Amino acid sequence: MASDVQETRRHEDRERLFSALPGHHLGALWDVYAESLTSEPVTREVPYLWSWSHMRPLLYEAARLVPTDEAERRVLMLLNPGLRGKSAITPTLYAGLQIILPGEVARSHRHTPNAIRLVMEGQGAFTAVNGERTVMNPGDFVTTPTWVWHDHGNESDQAVVWLDGLDLPLVTTLSSVFYQKYPERQQPVMRPLGDSTLRYGRGFRPAYDSAATHFSPIVSYPYRDARELLTRMAHNDGVNPHDGHILQYLNPLTGGAVLPTMDAFLQWIPPHSTLTAHRHTSASVYLGVEGHGTIEINGEAFDWEPHDVIVVPSWWHHRHVNPGDEPAILFSFTDRPVIKALSLYRESE
Amino acid sequence: MASDVQETRRHEDRERLFSALPGHHLGALWDVYAESLTSEPVTREVPYLWSWSHMRPLLYEAARLVPTDEAERRVLMLLNPGLRGKSAITPTLYAGLQIILPGEVARSHRHTPNAIRLVMEGQGAFTAVNGERTVMNPGDFVTTPTWVWHDHGNESDQAVVWLDGLDLPLVTTLSSVFYQKYPERQQPVMRPLGDSTLRYGRGFRPAYDSAATHFSPIVSYPYRDARELLTRMAHNDGVNPHDGHILQYLNPLTGGAVLPTMDAFLQWIPPHSTLTAHRHTSASVYLGVEGHGTIEINGEAFDWEPHDVIVVPSWWHHRHVNPGDEPAILFSFTDRPVIKALSLYRESE
Amino acid sequence: MASDVQETRRHEDRERLFSALPGHHLGALWDVYAESLTSEPVTREVPYLWSWSHMRPLLYEAARLVPTDEAERRVLMLLNPGLRGKSAITPTLYAGLQIILPGEVARSHRHTPNAIRLVMEGQGAFTAVNGERTVMNPGDFVTTPTWVWHDHGNESDQAVVWLDGLDLPLVTTLSSVFYQKYPERQQPVMRPLGDSTLRYGRGFRPAYDSAATHFSPIVSYPYRDARELLTRMAHNDGVNPHDGHILQYLNPLTGGAVLPTMDAFLQWIPPHSTLTAHRHTSASVYLGVEGHGTIEINGEAFDWEPHDVIVVPSWWHHRHVNPGDEPAILFSFTDRPVIKALSLYRESE
Amino acid sequence: MASDVQETRRHEDRERLFSALPGHHLGALWDVYAESLTSEPVTREVPYLWSWSHMRPLLYEAARLVPTDEAERRVLMLLNPGLRGKSAITPTLYAGLQIILPGEVARSHRHTPNAIRLVMEGQGAFTAVNGERTVMNPGDFVTTPTWVWHDHGNESDQAVVWLDGLDLPLVTTLSSVFYQKYPERQQPVMRPLGDSTLRYGRGFRPAYDSAATHFSPIVSYPYRDARELLTRMAHNDGVNPHDGHILQYLNPLTGGAVLPTMDAFLQWIPPHSTLTAHRHTSASVYLGVEGHGTIEINGEAFDWEPHDVIVVPSWWHHRHVNPGDEPAILFSFTDRPVIKALSLYRESE
Repeated sequence: MASDVQETRRHEDRERLFSALPGHHLGALWDVYAESLTSEPVTREVPYLWSWSHMRPLLYEAARLVPTDEAERRVLMLLNPGLRGKSAITPTLYAGLQIILPGEVARSHRHTPNAIRLVMEGQGAFTAVNGERTVMNPGDFVTTPTWVWHDHGNESDQAVVWLDGLDLPLVTTLSSVFYQKYPERQQPVMRPLGDSTLRYGRGFRPAYDSAATHFSPIVSYPYRDARELLTRMAHNDGVNPHDGHILQYLNPLTGGAVLPTMDAFLQWIPPHSTLTAHRHTSASVYLGVEGHGTIEINGEAFDWEPHDVIVVPSWWHHRHVNPGDEPAILFSFTDRPVIKALSLYRESE
Repeated sequence: MASDVQETRRHEDRERLFSALPGHHLGALWDVYAESLTSEPVTREVPYLWSWSHMRPLLYEAARLVPTDEAERRVLMLLNPGLRGKSAITPTLYAGLQIILPGEVARSHRHTPNAIRLVMEGQGAFTAVNGERTVMNPGDFVTTPTWVWHDHGNESDQAVVWLDGLDLPLVTTLSSVFYQKYPERQQPVMRPLGDSTLRYGRGFRPAYDSAATHFSPIVSYPYRDARELLTRMAHNDGVNPHDGHILQYLNPLTGGAVLPTMDAFLQWIPPHSTLTAHRHTSASVYLGVEGHGTIEINGEAFDWEPHDVIVVPSWWHHRHVNPGDEPAILFSFTDRPVIKALSLYRESE
Repeated sequence: MASDVQETRRHEDRERLFSALPGHHLGALWDVYAESLTSEPVTREVPYLWSWSHMRPLLYEAARLVPTDEAERRVLMLLNPGLRGKSAITPTLYAGLQIILPGEVARSHRHTPNAIRLVMEGQGAFTAVNGERTVMNPGDFVTTPTWVWHDHGNESDQAVVWLDGLDLPLVTTLSSVFYQKYPERQQPVMRPLGDSTLRYGRGFRPAYDSAATHFSPIVSYPYRDARELLTRMAHNDGVNPHDGHILQYLNPLTGGAVLPTMDAFLQWIPPHSTLTAHRHTSASVYLGVEGHGTIEINGEAFDWEPHDVIVVPSWWHHRHVNPGDEPAILFSFTDRPVIKALSLYRESE
Repeated sequence: MASDVQETRRHEDRERLFSALPGHHLGALWDVYAESLTSEPVTREVPYLWSWSHMRPLLYEAARLVPTDEAERRVLMLLNPGLRGKSAITPTLYAGLQIILPGEVARSHRHTPNAIRLVMEGQGAFTAVNGERTVMNPGDFVTTPTWVWHDHGNESDQAVVWLDGLDLPLVTTLSSVFYQKYPERQQPVMRPLGDSTLRYGRGFRPAYDSAATHFSPIVSYPYRDARELLTRMAHNDGVNPHDGHILQYLNPLTGGAVLPTMDAFLQWIPPHSTLTAHRHTSASVYLGVEGHGTIEINGEAFDWEPHDVIVVPSWWHHRHVNPGDEPAILFSFTDRPVIKALSLYRESE
């Protein structure tokens, strides 16, 4: 009897304590412990494939409807179905498709989030970074690192579409977003085409430069060069069990990732191959570039065609399959440099 | 007329596009651009002070009500008023007050989030880390780094309270939380008291050790030693305009922060002093240790007493004031190593 | 009187002590203190210019007289006049001119000393490094880093001459010379021409490679590329007061010197220019490449023509003068990475 | 016949070439190739043991004969028998015994060579480094890093003797010796006793300091502390096959060697033990501290007593033997940081 009374009293006291906590902005760890400290990562974000066949008409409709003077904002964001309310494809990464019409300009600005671009369609547009223009052709990889002035323009007669990848969700979480508009619509062109490649991308550097080293000084990595190396690797090297043949876009001032928060890769899945599944504590966003294939994520098949985008969340098993006769080529970017810098990287089959 | 019709049509088309996007898990950047890319960090988290006079009775009530066999979960979490729904004091940091009663044990486990402790009340409890026990006295700073086995116990006759600081919100965002229970209730004690201090904290190291270097191998930093250094600095050194006299808990294997994601400090605000405000893109959690003072955050005064906890979000101006006759001593921990590792650190007055 | 006796006694005792020391392999510091600890570096090595017009006939005479099967040793060493008895151009560096006749092979071997080559005359010879051949054209810069297999051959119809630069004197001083002959006369060719350039010299790297990072993975740096960058710098950049326009051969895996012990540069002294003298605690070996000019070393003029070699010892003032109408182009290599790694680098005007 | 004539002609031509080379400061590599590129390190320096019983009387005789105002030069240098003409115990290292009499002062100066001291006899002398005095007791390890002001004095009533270790031969080879006298006989004392230990040697550092990181900020490493750690290791840890129990003097700002060019160790050879021979491309200078033992170097036994000094050249096999009942304790310093920084380190049994 007494113990029942005690138990009831105890229960009431607990309820009273619980109800008192929020007013003091306190919470009970014992209430959320199990869901907070899980034996393995439990992600809200989920795997997903955005089909180019769905996105393309919507993107061109956006091009028609969003005015020219908002070209720098004319982007369809790819929103992870598990992260409702966030402009994010993973908790750290953002991805979007941007379209620039002939004659348009995406106004010059800079921001602390880092950005990468992978050109999908059209040619002859340019990105200008710190006074250097680079022409964008399909498959080209272009970076606009943290806090450098950049703008885009399209002086060709075709629409140009590219994939944008940013660390915006992470930098937002870190309460570190800064943004500035350039005083003019476009920054002046002060360096010849290909200048940064000549200065840093051929095995040399100006000896007295004062280049920042935390991001690559190379503005553009042409697809032509990347594909030549991939082809060489496919012909001469052994196949990696998880990634086939894969190259990393390099920061030649450190030997590491191209940006302090994002790593980027181009890979070749050989014809008629089924690679081995693995998983790691970094998230990846893939873009189909050539051929077609399948990424199986925790056993679910995501069949991709060129220009499709697929997200593989952290710690989800994934494997690549290429059933066809042609190599399947995928671009990807990840948040691996963040995970490694904080000593949280794990990988397993 | 015609243009009105066109405008109406355009508006309808835009609405149609908007309503089509969510079904494809797409979003319109032009809709969220301004709020996403702000000229300066705009934080949801806000400054706040948790008063020990409020927290203490609730904590002892929790001690009474949360059973002994859940001692490792008996923590009052300090929840930032701006981050509703999250177990977080900032977007990257967690803080809580833990109480262990005489005879209790907080069971042994390990997890990828890093943790620090600062002892607030009581003495004679212990933390065991990787087979080494350390006795916890008021003001002592103890670390339990990523993925090392740790447990706590209280073999004294007093309740013991400490501040817990973890990077749990960050590691959760990075989808990298792993957790394991130790097979036994407590890990065996395999090293004498003070072993890691003797091995790494006096200017030597075993030459053939294989210590991980990404976190400090020192388990405990006694308050006695820290205060002795602070006193020395107060008597011999110039006053730093923003921080008075401040020491960093050191990782002697790198010369840097004590943990890969968190930096910790002890500081001395001289009597009768008003320091200069500054701000930086890292968040700080302060704990009053001795004396009393004020932190003015964006002009609002937060008057602290010993054991009060104050959070200063990223990029909020803050300055220290000590109106009294005695030095005011504050402990703090921050996410600065994360911000610096990702090249996002900024500081200004 | 007494003091005279004492003084004599004292003198005798001192002599006795002096004469006793050598037998115990002891020496008196007070005897050599002043010469050991000088206010500034006092070098035994001296500046010197080796004239191509003198060396060329001797080199071709050596080619005639040293048998084909000793081609790998058919090198005229440039011996610093101040370092008699040493095979050294500075206390850390070695330089030599090597000549390989049509059809000859310099046998495959490896050694711990690092080597660089700068092609002076002839074309069509090759260097093979770790299974990769590279064709050597005038001005090309080729490395054979520490402990990699290398051999040379000349399948053209012309004699080929290059400058060899090694850290052999340093590695000898460090008692760390290892040397091995390859089991065969030449190593098998296992990689296509230009393989390392494709893999590492264009802004990419194979993501799963396991390249050593302490030396550049790039085997050959073509003169064509280096000169293109220099020309760009000469047209677009400001003139460095000491070095005109100067590029560094880069290790793209670190952003630093091409070899752990040697840094290499190509520089452009503009027409009609007199640069500013400076000095630094690293030694430089210069090779004239194009045009002609003067290096004034501690005020003494050394007028150089293409293929002349000039040594500037550590801490000697030197300045570049180009009185002519054409740019003067110099290659150089230095021991600066050693000096910097040991925190001994100083520079002043 | 003809061929005899040809051969004679050829021989004469070779002789003529040979005799022409020196005048142009050229040499024939083919003449010295085999001795320059040896399959393994061939050292001129040899192993040797300097016996305290021989050195002590000579040292006290020097104390009597070298005047007080030359106290900073009153050092018996230990000269490697294989390096005649050099003030060197190995090609990179210098060792000497210094004696300071009661009331004497070794005048204040600084130099680019780094120095270590290990106190052998007497107590109560001091070393002052950058305004901080440290009292020297037997076994204490004191550093005077590159280019810091330092002086010594003896205010006790006993003579004090210590071992000096410098990188002077290396810094001389690198033509980087700078030296300055302090304007006064002694620098002013500006910091309390033990200041650097309090600031850096207990797990903290002043957060806003601007300490150089290439050498340890700790001035003195007391023997008492080092021995306590060694004793702990001897009781708790497994025995290293080559070194018994061995600690490294640590630079807490890097986790590495105490000086950029020299590493220092204290080791404990357990009673009745014969360790395993090994060799490495760094040279070591040992000093007997407690007990006695044998170092077998390439099979030759060097039996040491306290205060004996033994040199083990690079790449000579050596093993430790302790036949006695007591632990044998050895101090040593090496040039290993140099060898490692230049990627030349090798080790084998």
